[in-house]
Amino acid sequence: MPGSSTGTLFHITTFGESHGPAVGVVVDGCPAGLAIDWQQVQAQLDRRRPGQNRLTTQRKEADELEVLSGMFEGRSLGTPIAIVIRNKDNRSKDYQKWSQVYRPSHADYTTNIKYGYRTPHGGGRASARETIGRVAAGAIAEQILRQELGIEIVAWVDSVGTVEAGLMQNTPDSRAVVDQSLVRCPDEKVSAQMINKIEEIKKAGNSIGGTIGVVVRNVPPGLGEPVFDRLEAELAKAALNLPACKGFESGSGFAGSQQTARDHNDLYTFPQSAGLQSRELPTPPLNYNDIAAVQTKSNHSGGIQGGISNGMPITMRLAFKPTATIHHEQETVNEIGQSATILPGGRHDPCVLPRAVPIVEAMVSLVLVDALFKQRALYPEWWQRFQKNNVSRPR
Amino acid sequence: MPGSSTGTLFHITTFGESHGPAVGVVVDGCPAGLAIDWQQVQAQLDRRRPGQNRLTTQRKEADELEVLSGMFEGRSLGTPIAIVIRNKDNRSKDYQKWSQVYRPSHADYTTNIKYGYRTPHGGGRASARETIGRVAAGAIAEQILRQELGIEIVAWVDSVGTVEAGLMQNTPDSRAVVDQSLVRCPDEKVSAQMINKIEEIKKAGNSIGGTIGVVVRNVPPGLGEPVFDRLEAELAKAALNLPACKGFESGSGFAGSQQTARDHNDLYTFPQSAGLQSRELPTPPLNYNDIAAVQTKSNHSGGIQGGISNGMPITMRLAFKPTATIHHEQETVNEIGQSATILPGGRHDPCVLPRAVPIVEAMVSLVLVDALFKQRALYPEWWQRFQKNNVSRPR
Amino acid sequence: MPGSSTGTLFHITTFGESHGPAVGVVVDGCPAGLAIDWQQVQAQLDRRRPGQNRLTTQRKEADELEVLSGMFEGRSLGTPIAIVIRNKDNRSKDYQKWSQVYRPSHADYTTNIKYGYRTPHGGGRASARETIGRVAAGAIAEQILRQELGIEIVAWVDSVGTVEAGLMQNTPDSRAVVDQSLVRCPDEKVSAQMINKIEEIKKAGNSIGGTIGVVVRNVPPGLGEPVFDRLEAELAKAALNLPACKGFESGSGFAGSQQTARDHNDLYTFPQSAGLQSRELPTPPLNYNDIAAVQTKSNHSGGIQGGISNGMPITMRLAFKPTATIHHEQETVNEIGQSATILPGGRHDPCVLPRAVPIVEAMVSLVLVDALFKQRALYPEWWQRFQKNNVSRPR
Amino acid sequence: MPGSSTGTLFHITTFGESHGPAVGVVVDGCPAGLAIDWQQVQAQLDRRRPGQNRLTTQRKEADELEVLSGMFEGRSLGTPIAIVIRNKDNRSKDYQKWSQVYRPSHADYTTNIKYGYRTPHGGGRASARETIGRVAAGAIAEQILRQELGIEIVAWVDSVGTVEAGLMQNTPDSRAVVDQSLVRCPDEKVSAQMINKIEEIKKAGNSIGGTIGVVVRNVPPGLGEPVFDRLEAELAKAALNLPACKGFESGSGFAGSQQTARDHNDLYTFPQSAGLQSRELPTPPLNYNDIAAVQTKSNHSGGIQGGISNGMPITMRLAFKPTATIHHEQETVNEIGQSATILPGGRHDPCVLPRAVPIVEAMVSLVLVDALFKQRALYPEWWQRFQKNNVSRPR
Repeated sequence: MPGSSTGTLFHITTFGESHGPAVGVVVDGCPAGLAIDWQQVQAQLDRRRPGQNRLTTQRKEADELEVLSGMFEGRSLGTPIAIVIRNKDNRSKDYQKWSQVYRPSHADYTTNIKYGYRTPHGGGRASARETIGRVAAGAIAEQILRQELGIEIVAWVDSVGTVEAGLMQNTPDSRAVVDQSLVRCPDEKVSAQMINKIEEIKKAGNSIGGTIGVVVRNVPPGLGEPVFDRLEAELAKAALNLPACKGFESGSGFAGSQQTARDHNDLYTFPQSAGLQSRELPTPPLNYNDIAAVQTKSNHSGGIQGGISNGMPITMRLAFKPTATIHHEQETVNEIGQSATILPGGRHDPCVLPRAVPIVEAMVSLVLVDALFKQRALYPEWWQRFQKNNVSRPR
Repeated sequence: MPGSSTGTLFHITTFGESHGPAVGVVVDGCPAGLAIDWQQVQAQLDRRRPGQNRLTTQRKEADELEVLSGMFEGRSLGTPIAIVIRNKDNRSKDYQKWSQVYRPSHADYTTNIKYGYRTPHGGGRASARETIGRVAAGAIAEQILRQELGIEIVAWVDSVGTVEAGLMQNTPDSRAVVDQSLVRCPDEKVSAQMINKIEEIKKAGNSIGGTIGVVVRNVPPGLGEPVFDRLEAELAKAALNLPACKGFESGSGFAGSQQTARDHNDLYTFPQSAGLQSRELPTPPLNYNDIAAVQTKSNHSGGIQGGISNGMPITMRLAFKPTATIHHEQETVNEIGQSATILPGGRHDPCVLPRAVPIVEAMVSLVLVDALFKQRALYPEWWQRFQKNNVSRPR
Repeated sequence: MPGSSTGTLFHITTFGESHGPAVGVVVDGCPAGLAIDWQQVQAQLDRRRPGQNRLTTQRKEADELEVLSGMFEGRSLGTPIAIVIRNKDNRSKDYQKWSQVYRPSHADYTTNIKYGYRTPHGGGRASARETIGRVAAGAIAEQILRQELGIEIVAWVDSVGTVEAGLMQNTPDSRAVVDQSLVRCPDEKVSAQMINKIEEIKKAGNSIGGTIGVVVRNVPPGLGEPVFDRLEAELAKAALNLPACKGFESGSGFAGSQQTARDHNDLYTFPQSAGLQSRELPTPPLNYNDIAAVQTKSNHSGGIQGGISNGMPITMRLAFKPTATIHHEQETVNEIGQSATILPGGRHDPCVLPRAVPIVEAMVSLVLVDALFKQRALYPEWWQRFQKNNVSRPR
Repeated sequence: MPGSSTGTLFHITTFGESHGPAVGVVVDGCPAGLAIDWQQVQAQLDRRRPGQNRLTTQRKEADELEVLSGMFEGRSLGTPIAIVIRNKDNRSKDYQKWSQVYRPSHADYTTNIKYGYRTPHGGGRASARETIGRVAAGAIAEQILRQELGIEIVAWVDSVGTVEAGLMQNTPDSRAVVDQSLVRCPDEKVSAQMINKIEEIKKAGNSIGGTIGVVVRNVPPGLGEPVFDRLEAELAKAALNLPACKGFESGSGFAGSQQTARDHNDLYTFPQSAGLQSRELPTPPLNYNDIAAVQTKSNHSGGIQGGISNGMPITMRLAFKPTATIHHEQETVNEIGQSATILPGGRHDPCVLPRAVPIVEAMVSLVLVDALFKQRALYPEWWQRFQKNNVSRPR
C-alpha cells in the first residue's frame, strides 16, 4: 500500500493536505454496534489542536468533525467510518515567498524528488495537520480497547531539551494528572522548568525537542505476532511514523543496553491474591487460569517479551527532534539548484511535545487494537479467558 | 499476515524452530535473471554463525544452505527461492530439565499464553536461530541494492555495556574494517576493552547488552512512503523485530531531542563538483537533474527527512538488552503457577552484539529493497534518473 | 483488510451508505503530476447514474464530485485523493415499512447476522450507490493506463435474459459505439429486442438478469502474478465483487470446457509487419524486441496465458442475476424469526445491466493499473520496452 | 505480494518448479494445538497425484511430505509449517527439444516476456505440480473447518467436454460417493460415458476440458467481507488461480442471468424444527438465536448473498479448458521470433478434471478458513453463537 493506510484488521486511511480543502480519515474495521463517544474523540482532538494555550502555535483551527458514513443512531455499522475536518485558517500567503526554496530539515526537498511534483503551500502531507485523522481514528480504537479490556493509555512529556522529568519508573496514573500541566508533564516542578524553557526558546525564534513517555495498563498477555510483527516492532513503527520522531525505546531501551542480565532479567512471580489453580503437571492445551495472573518483579522488559505482551504495563519512550521551522535566516538551495537563504514566517510551535501527547496515544491505540483482533481471530479461547480482564494487573 | 512474513514486493517468509528439523526462508519477489552470489550469502551467514570465535556460544552449526527452488543455472527465475538449513547440533536434553518452567526474560511464558501450546525445547521461533533465514534473504536483497544502486550497508558494534566507541559521526568505511575486530568494533582500542569486558562477563556466567551502529551509503533520495510507511518507521520496525532489540534511533535520535533547531537543522548545499543545471524557474514536472546532487552540510536527519531518504548517508543505532540466559539460579514460576527456581544450562552468548551485526544488515537490506521497488513502481522516470547513481554522494 | 479497500500499489477505499450523508472514495497510489481529466471521471459517473433514461430507476442523483485532497492546480500530488459525493434523494420512508423484515435475495439477512447490527434504511453498503466511489477511482486508473500504454477498455451488454447479442468474437470498437444504444448493446437489432424485453419486465414489476462482455486492447504482455494473483483471478475477483454478479469467464470460458485442445490451442504467429530481429539463439536475458510482436492466430485464451497477459485483447464475460427488488408480494421472515410478507416499494431498475457497464470498466481498470505497477516495480527494463506500446496490437 | 502467497490470517506461500529439486509450501497462521491428521493430507495428495489410474498421465511421483517445522509431538505450534516434497521423476530430456520454442497455449511465452528469463524445463511455476503445496495447505485448512464448524467440502467432475452430469441441483453427499467413479463423477451412467470419452481423446493424442462442481455444507452465515473481499469474489479468485481454469459461477451463475427475479429470488423460511425464539421487536444488538436457523426455500444464491454466506450450502462451478499439451504438430514461434513447429512429447493428462477435484477443494478451504478467522476477529460473540454449529443446516 502506498503509505497512507495502516492496520490489517483495523484498517485506516488518512487523507488531506494542510492547505487543501480538508483533512480526514476512513476507519474500516470498527466492529458494528459500538456506541462511539464522539465527545471523547473531540477531547483528544482538542488536546492536539494548535492555539490551545500560549505555548503552542497561534494557528487556530476548530477541528470540528463531520462523520460521513458508518454510523446509525449513534452506533457503528461495521462499515467504513469516514471523518472529514475542513481546513479554515490556511494563510497560504505565508508560504508563497519560499515556495521555490527548500526549508532546511523539512520534507520539501525529499517530497519534491520523490514525487517530482509538490504543492508550494506548506508541508502537504508532512504537516502535523495530517495527524488529525490519526487522532480521530485512534480515539475510536481506544474506546474498543477500553470497553473490551479496560486498557488505559497515558502519555506525557518526559523531557524538553535537557529538562528531564524521568518518569519511566514512576508513570502517571491518568490523563487528568498529565493535563494539570500546561506542557503535559506530571512532575509539577519540572513542568514549571519546561514552561520557562519553552518560553525562552519561543522568544528566541527557535524551537526545541524532547521526549514523550507512554504507559499502557491492563494489556492482557498474548498480543503481538513474532517474527516480523512483534508488538514492540509495531509500536516502534507507529512511533517513527510521527513527524519529527527520531527515536523509540521499549522498556529499559538504550539504558538496558548498558546492563547485565543479572540486573536486567525480570523474575516471574505470583501476586498473593491469585490462588494457584491446579497441582498436576499440565498437558496441552494450556490451562490459562494457571498462569493468567503471572507477574514479573521488575519490568525492564516494558511489558513485552519475545515480541508478545506479558501482562505487565507496556512502557516506551519516544524522542522528537526540534521542529524545523525557526525565525532565523538559514542557507539553503532552491528548486533549480541555486543557493538561497530563507527566513520562514509561518506560525509554528516552539516545542511540539505537549501537542504530540494525544497523537502518540492514538498511534499506540491503533497498534493495540489490530494486535487484539489478530490474536482473537486465531485464539477464541484466549479471548474467552481474557476479555473480562478480571485478573488484577499491576499499574 | 500472522507474523512470519514481511515485505510487500520483496516478500519473505521464514520458518523453523531451533530444535526442529530445519530452519529456512522463502523469498518471493527477487527479480528474474539475478546471478546470485551464494558465497556472499554464505559469508553473511558465517558472520552470524555461533562458535565462530571464543566470544560466542560454543553451539556449532555449519549452517549450510540448500536451495530448493527459484534458481536455474545460477540465475534467479523470478519465482520463490526456498532455502533450507538443517539443524544438527540441537542438544535437546539441555532444555528438558526446565521445560515446564518459564525462563526469566525469555519468551517462554508469553509464547505459552499466546498460543496455548509450546515446544519445551528451547526458544522455538524466539531463538536466534530463526534469524538465519533473514540473513540469507537479506543477503539476496543486498545484492540487488548493490548491483542496481551501489548501496553499501555497514553495521558495527558501537558499545558493549558502558564501553562505548561512539562512532555515529565517524562511521566505518567497510565491513572489512569492521571485521578486523573480534567484536566487530572498528575502534581498535575500544575493541580491546570490549573483548576484555565480554570475557569477564562470560567468566561470571552473566551476559551484557550493547548497541549497534549502522550506516547506509549511496541511497538515492526518494525512498520511503509517508504517512504510515516512512522509511525511518520501516527501519525501526525491522530493528525492533530482532530478538533482544529494545531501542532504535535514526540520525540524531535521543540526543537530538535535547537540541534546538538552530543547532539541529541540516542546511542544504551543492557540492562544488555538481554544476547548476538550469537558470529559469521550473514548472512541473521537476527536472531531477537540477537537484539530484543536493546535499546537507550536517546530517542530523540521518539521511531521512519527512520519512523519505534525502541522499545523505542513512544512519541509525540499535539498542540490545543482555541475552536472558545466564548461569545463575533465578526465581520463577512453572506452567501450573508454582514457584520454582531455574539454572539454565544451554550454551549461549555472553554478548550477542558481534553476531547481530550481519542480522541488522540483513534487516536493513530487506527494508530498502522493498522501498526501492515501491518507488520505481509508481515513478519510472525517477528510476531512469537514479538507477545509475552517477551522482557522487557523501560518505 | 476489512473489505472496503482493494489494490496493493493503487490502493482505494470506498465508504458510505446509500442513505447516509455521503458516499466516496480515497485513492492512494495515483502517481504525482497526473493532469486528471475530471470531465472523463464525471462522464463515467453519468453513465452509471440512475434516472439517465426511461429504462433505469427514477431515483435521481446528480452525483457531483467534491475533491477534498491530493490535487493542486489540476495535477495529482501523489497523495491520497479523497472524493465525496453527497446523497440527496434518499427517501428513507420508502424503506421504513420493511425495516424489520428481510427482503428476499437482498443482503439484509446476511448483513444482520454478520455484523449483529444494521441500518434499516436500504441496502447500506450493499446498495449499488456504493459503486460510485469505484467508478470515480476506476476512471482515474483508466487515465493512467490510457496515457502510459494506450489501453482501451470497452464493456457492453451482451445479453438481457435470453436475448443475446453474442459479441465476444466481434467486440465493439469503442464506448461511443456502445452508447449509441439505450441498453448499451452495440448490435442495433438485438438492442431493440432488449429494450422491448426490459420495458415488458418493468411493466410486470419484475426484473431480469443478463451478461456484460468486456474487451481490453493494447495491454502489453507480462501483466499478472502467478500463482495466487493471476491476472484472470484478479479480474474474476473484481467481477464477483460487483453486486448481483454471479459468474465470470475469461476467453473461451465455459464454452471452452467443451472443446479439445486441437480446437482450443492458440497458435503463435508473427504479424507480417514486424520484422524478425535477430538470427542467433538467444542467451539470457531475453531480447524483448525479438518477441514483443508475437501474436496468436486465435484468442481462446482471452489474452491471458498462465495467468499473465500475452498482448492479445483481454476478453471476459460477466453474468448478473436479476436485481432482487420487485413489486410483488413475497414470503419472508423478520428479525425475530416470524413469518412475514413483503411488497417492496422503493425505486429500482428492471435491469441493472446498462448501468453496470461503466462499473465493470472501472473494476477492470483498477485491476490493470495495480498489475502494471507491480510489473514495472520489479522489471524496469520491461517497462522501458513496453511503455511506448509501439507494437501494433490486434484489436 | 509477488503472487506466490495468499491469505491474510491463514497465510500460505508455495514454492518450487516442476523440474527443480522440490516443491512445497509454508503455512503461517495455523492455530497452535491442532492435532493434524497427516493421513488426511496425504489422502488428498494421492487424489491429486499423477499416475493414479489409466486415465491420468503416467508421470509417477510418490509425493511424500516432509514436514520441516511448526509441529511438535503431532500438534501444530502456531508457527509456520514448512512442507517439502522432493521431485523425483523429472525427465528433463522430454522438454529439452522444445526449450527454445513456445508451446501453444502454455505459459512459456508469457513467462518469458514477464520475467525476461525462464527455465527451459517444463512449465516451471505454471506446472500442475505447483499445486501440491496448495493441496497440502488446503488439507490443513479443511481440518480446522471440519473440527470447529463441521464444514464439508465436496467437489466432483460435472462435465467432460459435452458429456454433462449436471448435478448442481443434486449434489453428491460425500467424497466417498465421488471417488466411486474413476473420473470422480458421482452419476454412474455419465461417469461411464466420460471414461469412454477420455479414452478416445487419449488415443487421439488430444485433450479435453470440462467442469467441476462444488458444494460446501455447514458454513455458518456471516462469512465474507463486502465490498472488495466478498465471499464469492474470493472463491472466484481462488478458482481462476488454478491452471487451466477459465470460468467460475456461484449459485445460479450464467443460467441465472437468463431468469427474472420472480423465479430467482430465494424466499426466507424457518425449518419446522427451529422454534421461534422471541416475540418482541428486537433492539440492537441482534439476538442471533432469533435468526440463526433461517433458511431459504430455493438456493439460487448458492449460499451467498451480498457477498456474505447465508447458511445455505455454498455451490459453485468451475470451467477448465483442455490442457494445452497434445501429441500433434502445431505451428508456433521460437525465442528469437522465427516460425517453428512443435510436437510435444512429455507425459500429460488427456483430461485434468479428475485430478483437479482435490485441488479445487483445497482452494475453497483456504478461502473459507481465512474468512472465518476474519469474522471471529471482529465478532467474537458471533463465534460464540456459531462455533458449535448446532443449527441443523440443509444439505
